[in-house]
Amino acid sequence: MHQDLTSLTAFSQLLLDLPGEDPAARAAAEAREAELTKPPGSLGRLETLAAWYCGWRGVSRPVIQSPQIIVFAGNHGVTAQGVSAFPADVTAQMVGNFQNGGAAINQLARTVGAKMDVHALALDRPTADITTGPAMSEQEVCEALKTGWQAVESTSDLVVVGEMGIGNTTSAAAIALALFGGTSAEWTGRGTGVEGGALTHKAAVVARAVEANISNNINGLEALRCLGGRELAAMAGAVARARMLRIPVILDGFICTAAAACLEVAQPGALDHAVAGHVSSEPGHDKLLKNLGKEPILSLGMRLGEGSGAALAISVLKAALACHSGMATFAEAGVAGG
Amino acid sequence: MHQDLTSLTAFSQLLLDLPGEDPAARAAAEAREAELTKPPGSLGRLETLAAWYCGWRGVSRPVIQSPQIIVFAGNHGVTAQGVSAFPADVTAQMVGNFQNGGAAINQLARTVGAKMDVHALALDRPTADITTGPAMSEQEVCEALKTGWQAVESTSDLVVVGEMGIGNTTSAAAIALALFGGTSAEWTGRGTGVEGGALTHKAAVVARAVEANISNNINGLEALRCLGGRELAAMAGAVARARMLRIPVILDGFICTAAAACLEVAQPGALDHAVAGHVSSEPGHDKLLKNLGKEPILSLGMRLGEGSGAALAISVLKAALACHSGMATFAEAGVAGG
Repeated sequence: MHQDLTSLTAFSQLLLDLPGEDPAARAAAEAREAELTKPPGSLGRLETLAAWYCGWRGVSRPVIQSPQIIVFAGNHGVTAQGVSAFPADVTAQMVGNFQNGGAAINQLARTVGAKMDVHALALDRPTADITTGPAMSEQEVCEALKTGWQAVESTSDLVVVGEMGIGNTTSAAAIALALFGGTSAEWTGRGTGVEGGALTHKAAVVARAVEANISNNINGLEALRCLGGRELAAMAGAVARARMLRIPVILDGFICTAAAACLEVAQPGALDHAVAGHVSSEPGHDKLLKNLGKEPILSLGMRLGEGSGAALAISVLKAALACHSGMATFAEAGVAGG
Repeated sequence: MHQDLTSLTAFSQLLLDLPGEDPAARAAAEAREAELTKPPGSLGRLETLAAWYCGWRGVSRPVIQSPQIIVFAGNHGVTAQGVSAFPADVTAQMVGNFQNGGAAINQLARTVGAKMDVHALALDRPTADITTGPAMSEQEVCEALKTGWQAVESTSDLVVVGEMGIGNTTSAAAIALALFGGTSAEWTGRGTGVEGGALTHKAAVVARAVEANISNNINGLEALRCLGGRELAAMAGAVARARMLRIPVILDGFICTAAAACLEVAQPGALDHAVAGHVSSEPGHDKLLKNLGKEPILSLGMRLGEGSGAALAISVLKAALACHSGMATFAEAGVAGG
């Protein structure tokens, strides 16, 4: 792949030419569902997920064998505003924890049988404080997009992107406010655990960040550059690359979804190859998903990030395809149809 | 185990002496959760499921290695009333499909790494038509309870019970109406696919079944005998035996939950070792779960039975314990605590 990722204009051109799903593969998958030994529709969401997956892979009877989880980490200058319950050093410490296998996402990846990769993006160079101007230059955001783009393996058959970055719920809330409007308080949540007056302060920081950048002609990709962070841009790059490769994506929580929303705003339909793995307890996430028209697979009160909710949803996708592709038909099993 | 299962009186005596959870193991598990490398509470339901599981297993850092799925099948005389979209022969045909590995539950069992057993209970002798009197004699219900009791392996560390039985949503609705009141229409759903006038007819059959048996001093175990079926009684027996062995249980859909509810009504607290794996699209299921105070883990619009929703929830339980027992603590990972 030799796509030009050196400017946001070039990247937005790429988004104009995304592949679509294969209607014949989807139709064949739907026809197969009707033949399987169960009352029609009785596997509920598993059936619609299977048909969606078949359409994007372009095959009517696949199994999921090579899911890939990619965790990106970045640091945020906005932590200087006191928006997190944890110090910024924790980003690098958690990258070490990912590398040593001690984090939640490591256990989840093993449980669901996924490969996991970790990319730390210039942790020694936090993005600029978004309350005073753009988080990144165009060169910086493009480098991060490229890191995400290159992280997706063409042999993967399902992709989850996750993140770690102290301060990044502030960044995600600012993106959501810029893209979808409303008040900063509606988009601002506890993140790692801020409460009371600290939460009110965080919402004010989010509002100031959007005000400070509103002159930058906020569209999807400019929102990513001005209000995002390196790990958000990398997630967006990976989601876009997965689309080019026809690899379905499971979105994770608030931050992942905010990053992905920048693609959808830049090019409506850009997330048609992605489902929402879960809805987190970060209140802005449910609002974001509604804006994107995405129904979450899981709702378990998770709010960790790292790709954890989406990783857990891999097991649902795997089960959906195992049923779809492995079950006997009424004719094969000698069972009387309904 | 030499428990007396020859009469419902003897069985109800067993329920008086059920083991409880281990408060020390639960407390140790909760203390460990607070030390793991994540913001407190950020794994949501996974954390509470892990602590619950540890309490019932009596250990503070377990993993789930030997889940067992047990599917019971039975036939129902009430099918003579025209309550199902499928003919009664399908029960035996689907048992063959389970044995040949072609059903949804086979694929799900393999995906989540569970052992699966199938028990067909006297398929050539359907229960009596519940619109005219009790489904089973005391001897018959006790034999079915015993089949379930003996089906649970002491080496299992998690149990799912599921069912197959054309006509059994009618049976489950009658149990729910008898135990919790309301109208028959509230508890009657589409089952395998009845609609319109057939659904109204099914609700009337449910009401007649309860009227025909109301004189039988309906308590939990009598409801199971008079309105249940062999596969429902076997599920109740298995759930009770799992409790005796301190093996946590995941409940499946409407029929499984109705069978289990008979235990809870017979002995409040008898289901404390059980969680709700999912809420099905059969409308009575949500009402049943609310009556039992159980919050479902999954909500995916499934309505197949066979243990399918609970089987899928095994992956969530496995993930919860993998995180709980496998993650590094803040101290181990050298990460600054919140």
